[in-house]
Amino acid sequence: MTDLLWPGDERAGGLLSDAAVLAAMVQVEQAWLDALVDAGLAPKALDLVGLVGPDDVSALAAGAEGGGNPVIGLVTLLRERAVPPGAVESDASWIHRGLTSQDVVDTGLMLVVRDALDRITADVRDQTASLIGLVEAHRSTTMVGRTLTQHAGPTTFGLVASGWLDGVVDAGEEIGRVRASLPVQVGGAVGTLAASTELARLAGLPDPESTAARVAQQTAGSLGLVAARPWHVRRGPVTRVGDALVAATDVWGQIATDVVTLSRPEIGELAEPAKEGRGGSSTMPQKQNPVLSVLLRRAALAAPPLASLLHTAASLAVDQRPDGSWHAEWDTLRTLARRAVVASSQAGELLAGLRVDAERMRANLDAARPGVLAERDGIRRLASGASATTTPADDHTADSYLGATDLLVDTALARARTFLEEPA
Amino acid sequence: MTDLLWPGDERAGGLLSDAAVLAAMVQVEQAWLDALVDAGLAPKALDLVGLVGPDDVSALAAGAEGGGNPVIGLVTLLRERAVPPGAVESDASWIHRGLTSQDVVDTGLMLVVRDALDRITADVRDQTASLIGLVEAHRSTTMVGRTLTQHAGPTTFGLVASGWLDGVVDAGEEIGRVRASLPVQVGGAVGTLAASTELARLAGLPDPESTAARVAQQTAGSLGLVAARPWHVRRGPVTRVGDALVAATDVWGQIATDVVTLSRPEIGELAEPAKEGRGGSSTMPQKQNPVLSVLLRRAALAAPPLASLLHTAASLAVDQRPDGSWHAEWDTLRTLARRAVVASSQAGELLAGLRVDAERMRANLDAARPGVLAERDGIRRLASGASATTTPADDHTADSYLGATDLLVDTALARARTFLEEPA
Amino acid sequence: MTDLLWPGDERAGGLLSDAAVLAAMVQVEQAWLDALVDAGLAPKALDLVGLVGPDDVSALAAGAEGGGNPVIGLVTLLRERAVPPGAVESDASWIHRGLTSQDVVDTGLMLVVRDALDRITADVRDQTASLIGLVEAHRSTTMVGRTLTQHAGPTTFGLVASGWLDGVVDAGEEIGRVRASLPVQVGGAVGTLAASTELARLAGLPDPESTAARVAQQTAGSLGLVAARPWHVRRGPVTRVGDALVAATDVWGQIATDVVTLSRPEIGELAEPAKEGRGGSSTMPQKQNPVLSVLLRRAALAAPPLASLLHTAASLAVDQRPDGSWHAEWDTLRTLARRAVVASSQAGELLAGLRVDAERMRANLDAARPGVLAERDGIRRLASGASATTTPADDHTADSYLGATDLLVDTALARARTFLEEPA
Amino acid sequence: MTDLLWPGDERAGGLLSDAAVLAAMVQVEQAWLDALVDAGLAPKALDLVGLVGPDDVSALAAGAEGGGNPVIGLVTLLRERAVPPGAVESDASWIHRGLTSQDVVDTGLMLVVRDALDRITADVRDQTASLIGLVEAHRSTTMVGRTLTQHAGPTTFGLVASGWLDGVVDAGEEIGRVRASLPVQVGGAVGTLAASTELARLAGLPDPESTAARVAQQTAGSLGLVAARPWHVRRGPVTRVGDALVAATDVWGQIATDVVTLSRPEIGELAEPAKEGRGGSSTMPQKQNPVLSVLLRRAALAAPPLASLLHTAASLAVDQRPDGSWHAEWDTLRTLARRAVVASSQAGELLAGLRVDAERMRANLDAARPGVLAERDGIRRLASGASATTTPADDHTADSYLGATDLLVDTALARARTFLEEPA
Repeated sequence: MTDLLWPGDERAGGLLSDAAVLAAMVQVEQAWLDALVDAGLAPKALDLVGLVGPDDVSALAAGAEGGGNPVIGLVTLLRERAVPPGAVESDASWIHRGLTSQDVVDTGLMLVVRDALDRITADVRDQTASLIGLVEAHRSTTMVGRTLTQHAGPTTFGLVASGWLDGVVDAGEEIGRVRASLPVQVGGAVGTLAASTELARLAGLPDPESTAARVAQQTAGSLGLVAARPWHVRRGPVTRVGDALVAATDVWGQIATDVVTLSRPEIGELAEPAKEGRGGSSTMPQKQNPVLSVLLRRAALAAPPLASLLHTAASLAVDQRPDGSWHAEWDTLRTLARRAVVASSQAGELLAGLRVDAERMRANLDAARPGVLAERDGIRRLASGASATTTPADDHTADSYLGATDLLVDTALARARTFLEEPA
Repeated sequence: MTDLLWPGDERAGGLLSDAAVLAAMVQVEQAWLDALVDAGLAPKALDLVGLVGPDDVSALAAGAEGGGNPVIGLVTLLRERAVPPGAVESDASWIHRGLTSQDVVDTGLMLVVRDALDRITADVRDQTASLIGLVEAHRSTTMVGRTLTQHAGPTTFGLVASGWLDGVVDAGEEIGRVRASLPVQVGGAVGTLAASTELARLAGLPDPESTAARVAQQTAGSLGLVAARPWHVRRGPVTRVGDALVAATDVWGQIATDVVTLSRPEIGELAEPAKEGRGGSSTMPQKQNPVLSVLLRRAALAAPPLASLLHTAASLAVDQRPDGSWHAEWDTLRTLARRAVVASSQAGELLAGLRVDAERMRANLDAARPGVLAERDGIRRLASGASATTTPADDHTADSYLGATDLLVDTALARARTFLEEPA
Repeated sequence: MTDLLWPGDERAGGLLSDAAVLAAMVQVEQAWLDALVDAGLAPKALDLVGLVGPDDVSALAAGAEGGGNPVIGLVTLLRERAVPPGAVESDASWIHRGLTSQDVVDTGLMLVVRDALDRITADVRDQTASLIGLVEAHRSTTMVGRTLTQHAGPTTFGLVASGWLDGVVDAGEEIGRVRASLPVQVGGAVGTLAASTELARLAGLPDPESTAARVAQQTAGSLGLVAARPWHVRRGPVTRVGDALVAATDVWGQIATDVVTLSRPEIGELAEPAKEGRGGSSTMPQKQNPVLSVLLRRAALAAPPLASLLHTAASLAVDQRPDGSWHAEWDTLRTLARRAVVASSQAGELLAGLRVDAERMRANLDAARPGVLAERDGIRRLASGASATTTPADDHTADSYLGATDLLVDTALARARTFLEEPA
Repeated sequence: MTDLLWPGDERAGGLLSDAAVLAAMVQVEQAWLDALVDAGLAPKALDLVGLVGPDDVSALAAGAEGGGNPVIGLVTLLRERAVPPGAVESDASWIHRGLTSQDVVDTGLMLVVRDALDRITADVRDQTASLIGLVEAHRSTTMVGRTLTQHAGPTTFGLVASGWLDGVVDAGEEIGRVRASLPVQVGGAVGTLAASTELARLAGLPDPESTAARVAQQTAGSLGLVAARPWHVRRGPVTRVGDALVAATDVWGQIATDVVTLSRPEIGELAEPAKEGRGGSSTMPQKQNPVLSVLLRRAALAAPPLASLLHTAASLAVDQRPDGSWHAEWDTLRTLARRAVVASSQAGELLAGLRVDAERMRANLDAARPGVLAERDGIRRLASGASATTTPADDHTADSYLGATDLLVDTALARARTFLEEPA
């Protein structure tokens, strides 16, 4: 997949594509049918995987308006195609029994979201490793610290990068937390598991409710999702994914904002990794644009409104299935996740090859004197009881006013290393 | 085009697709080159249309990350392919001279947006006609008016529909206003028209600045856009489109919210148009869901955050080209416009076939008595100087308390008819 | 009024304060009562102005939860206090007859919004004058143009400021357009003008509907608002105000973003107006922060989500009065407008005193050579048929590659002057 | 405090008011000064609490524009007033040494946010208890389940309320998680702890960096916040608060959306608690509006855009202190938190007194037959191998198709009880 108006989109490959969503929905139908069969509620296992595929996407999508979602068409197709040689037609009519469209869409989305989160998790670990390297390499690289765009005091690039590192680890932990809690959605028409319970009752099983619950649990288990009560109108699982994705794009956006700022020619402290064909201009051959950072900022700006919509939709969920707000979630969640995958990949490339001009940092810091040491001088006067007009006599090097940067850097490094040691 | 997660997407056909955007960008390059040639600034007319097409989209999109936008790749391709038999290679190198990537992207987007606005304009006129019919048919159809969900007083469905009508005409006027003001973007690298002015100077033309300005004007004229000063970092043209589109989805959303409410079985006053395959359920054969309204509400909920992003991006535009905020606009604007086209079409179908159950309206109104006439009784007591415990003796029909509905309806109808009489 | 967490808030004085809203609502009740009396529908004119005031705000606010809005309490208070010596108590009971709470809240908000728009309009005219001065003074001040943060080509600060000027005039026109269309809201309980029509009928007037409509028109006229059909659930008048305010903060935000960027010490091309006590730091005595621009950026970032909410609310309006979405508008609109007034004032101060360092601009441009002239050289080679390795021999000054800046600047100045000549 | 345009605002009392924020900032200065003194870095303990108070708010707020935040003025005031009888003036000049404005604002905001979260936590526990009661009381109260507004199948109100319960517990857990992680912000001018480290160095302490870190830790400890590395431009602590607050308003909004829907007269299944003066109308004496739910929906709609802004701001944080995005957070966070407190209180009242009309639920369910049992009949035909035209012969009561509601309800109750047993 590519997107002419979202450069870099191809980095996400087929993740969350229509075809991926369709495959995930088939997986859901399969897992549920298998669970029905295993519980003795449906007569015969059928192999649904592969029955529908990318070639069906367009027709299913066009047919989705009829029912408001693509599941009706999908079930029709599965039932038509699932009758294996020698099977009677009615076997296929067990497909989807006990599920409702929302179960299939929501669970399918959780599956494709999981793939996206896994990709991001891997990228975040790489970013963490890159940043550990940057922090270590530059713990003594002094630079001017800036507040409200003005020179404020000395710091080190190692400390700056350790802040990025903290952010990336935060994002990784949040993504991991959400990844581990993605729930299955299986509740049937109104969230009561009525159809599967009824099948259990008709089958004469002793505890129909528990049987239905076990079918739901097995479905969760075989899909690798968390078993959960139906959440048809309780949309926290969706908003939590959105919030975690935005928390991640926030972090990459903040890094990118630093990079575009510090790679301005007049500042010149950072430069994006050089790469053939990257950063050029259609008219100005000399230019080297910080394209990755520009595109990361784009992603960071575009994400919060999408996550915001997920929350608005959550609060409008009504009855046993929302009347529009649910439908607004799907493509929004997909877009949010896909773009986060792209950003994650771009951030990884940026951090792996970021070029730091320590000399320029030093030069800019030198040029910022004596103002950049004004706070230090004030502190020294205060401590010595001197008046404001007395300038302390000793050193004028900014290195002597780096505070606890070493200790702060060590704290961030230790945390990041622990993060990397934990299994993803 | 279809979108599995945005049912109805196919209603927009190829509007604003990658292929449409690409074709629009080629149109921009063509118009500019023609204007250069006509002004004597470039040597030879070349026919660019058709040189690149849908088959090139994927490669251009994948290559767009390098420069941050797809224009570099497009220009390369055009220059490669534009050399006609017998022409020298250098003729093709005049393509894009004097433009910058942003000129091509922004103007191209204005062109595809225009197509979307035109489609919506046509739909809005149809909606207006449908609503005029509904208002006329139901100006005497009494129903209960509701405030904060509770019965409040009598009204007519004609008046309700006349409010929808007012909204649709508002939207149409706003769309029309924006449609008429879509500007060309041609400014060159930093918005100074430097390259075209330089070409005019080198060609020895007497007033190089005016020549460059005329090239820009001719480009606007041949594309059917408004000539304008470069607006590389003044993004009003984009936010205005966004605001107008959202104003339209607001209106359709409000109508749809009324429809989903009034088509609840317990209320039963409205029903969506019946259509084979529309409104079904994957598990409940009896259901008739108000799918069009549900999908319209979806669109109305999803649109404001996107328009909001366009504004955020506008305020962050910096220097002579923004460092990320601009890039966030493209797909956002496209998505907003495409979804508005889909919603427009769905709203048209909804309004053309909306079913009104006048008997049910009357029955609900009757059931709301006497409370629904409490205000009237208070007014009568007040006017007669009677105390609150006296109930006025006369009629108990709600029809006697419909206020100025007739006059209000006439006002809306007159305005709507005038709107339809004006050329689109 | 002040706001500890929104520095500069006091610039808006009492505009849109609770007290101002309350006074506006009283004005609405007065205008309506006067119109009723003039039409012969109510017996006796009463003077409501001054009956409630700032001291009542707190109790009315606390009582507003009961009915969901403050109008019930207000009407009770007015009726209690309006009985003048010698009048019978029942005269006061005519207050508010024919209105509904929403009429009073919506119209009251339109009045306080108008005051805000008027203030902004005046500020925008001042900003326009300041910018005309800046453009004129710096039409020959060359500087480096930057795209994606990198040096791209030469331009002038006059052209940059002419872009700001265009934006400010855009904002002024949009604010003016909205200002001229602010509608009254008078529809009564369900938007039918039922109570006033009934009063006209009971009074034996020949055409009760027209009488009711005239009462509404007179109310609009005496308040200086536009007469309009009831728009209880058609919220365009609110969203249009929001969009215009955001369009304005976008423009100021873009200017501020340029200022914070160009006043970075390493760039040093612009500086905020110097003022005692402005731009200091709590710990760093040497700092001069671009505080106005920082606060303008704050305002520009905070506004779009608020306007977005107004749109979301508009699409959820249902029945004859919305069930929550309306209530979400009030404080949102107030906050949006008040902050825009503050930003408008800050932008005025910024532009009136902006310091331009033309020497630094020139120095930065010189330092950007030869790359900043690469496009020019390419154009010259192209025009001369030379190969890419040949460097054109002539001048190396950027001044020779300023394109049509003069003409473009003149266009903006002419438009701005026309804008100023029109009555506000 | 009250807010005329945000009915119910007074429920939050003084939480997050300007006075509360000011007091919190003083608390931060006190804690830091105490820690400096304890570490031997400042000479003399001073008692700052009470030195500034509500009467100072207005002047400090008006002065805040100068430095862009209110801390400069606050420090000036504290230093002026802190000189106790017998103390030398210079003792007071140690106030704020080592801090920067952002430390004071950010940490102060964390403190007032904590108070808000504590209030919400208490409310959520009450809501949980109320909901447990509702679920238990109505586990056998059958009602019709609705999807896309249409009757879909039978369910119980107990199950519906158990979904609300799950949501409220989710919100409580999320609020608790964020509450436990609120970090102190102490980093000094550029986040290096330079001034406090310098003081330790000048005091001849053996490990100046560790001393500075201990001062920061003690500050965190005495304020009851989590010790943390400086997060001046890593805004996760702020966005996490925003996301948790919105997750809570989502839940209350969803409940309120159900209530406004089910309390429509035509449905009549729920009614808000009756209370003198609640739910009235300014013109319609008979009305009983679901005001609490309406106001909860208002809050739920208004919250997501605010949280979205916090994320946008986070991604734009640059250098060592952001140039505008930080300033946009303050009032946004305050408003978000204060409104959430109000909503929490209203939700508590709503749930404590919600009136359930079990007879109406039953009647609506009965009226929905036979369609509401169509899925069941399909399942029975399937299980029996019968054709679609055969109607299963047995019972027609919806109670026989309630699925696993009992088990699902038990699961939610068990979780909620565990939640209540844990210490808040």
